[in-house]
Amino acid sequence: MIGRLNHVAIAVPDAAAASMLYRDALGVTVSAPIALPEHGVHVVFVELPNTRIELIEPLGENSPIAKFLGQHPQGALHHLCFEVGDIAAARDQLQRAGTRVLGEGEPKIGAHGKPVVFLNPKDCAGILIELEQA
Amino acid sequence: MIGRLNHVAIAVPDAAAASMLYRDALGVTVSAPIALPEHGVHVVFVELPNTRIELIEPLGENSPIAKFLGQHPQGALHHLCFEVGDIAAARDQLQRAGTRVLGEGEPKIGAHGKPVVFLNPKDCAGILIELEQA
Repeated sequence: MIGRLNHVAIAVPDAAAASMLYRDALGVTVSAPIALPEHGVHVVFVELPNTRIELIEPLGENSPIAKFLGQHPQGALHHLCFEVGDIAAARDQLQRAGTRVLGEGEPKIGAHGKPVVFLNPKDCAGILIELEQA
Repeated sequence: MIGRLNHVAIAVPDAAAASMLYRDALGVTVSAPIALPEHGVHVVFVELPNTRIELIEPLGENSPIAKFLGQHPQGALHHLCFEVGDIAAARDQLQRAGTRVLGEGEPKIGAHGKPVVFLNPKDCAGILIELEQA
């Protein structure tokens, strides 16, 4: 059902500082930090040949990643995002398999402007998984 | 310098159980659990179109991931592995940039039979990064 690993999202306290690791030490193309106030994050896109890393830094007092980062002050994996062809069909299949979808289960528009759902990490070996309609 | 994301390694308490999520709920091809006693893990390979997830479960009392899993009993990201063309040159470039390599700095043969080094998570926004000579 799922397709490509769309991105690996890493929560960091300072996206500009973390981007220097990827740009200067690891030699990868990175974007400038981009503010996404409606999602409560700054994001830096790290472009790899086969996928992308997104370095996300809290933006604003109500950022959804602020508490997470408080628990992981150096930074940590926030979620993995996989592509699906039909988000509603994917959600239905998962729920039939007993995998819980966070929230009300209705897809929302994610940071890429596409419908997404998030799966309960308790059903996913501790990993927060995002599904995005590609 | 770095190339493809070779794999995402997720430490799990039960690789067979975690593989059911990927196989049955997410619909992905997974391998049977493979014992790698010299690395102290069982591993399940989850094949995605553009990269691979490796579900790693401790094998034996001295497994290098046992302590990590004790701190993350549900499971958690263990490391990200990026490919490089020349492991020694990559190590030298990283050390010049101030990024510390774990251990003595000499590449070792990793679970895929290729030379690898691991970078200090304190220099990598909290993420354990493996570099593998592709």
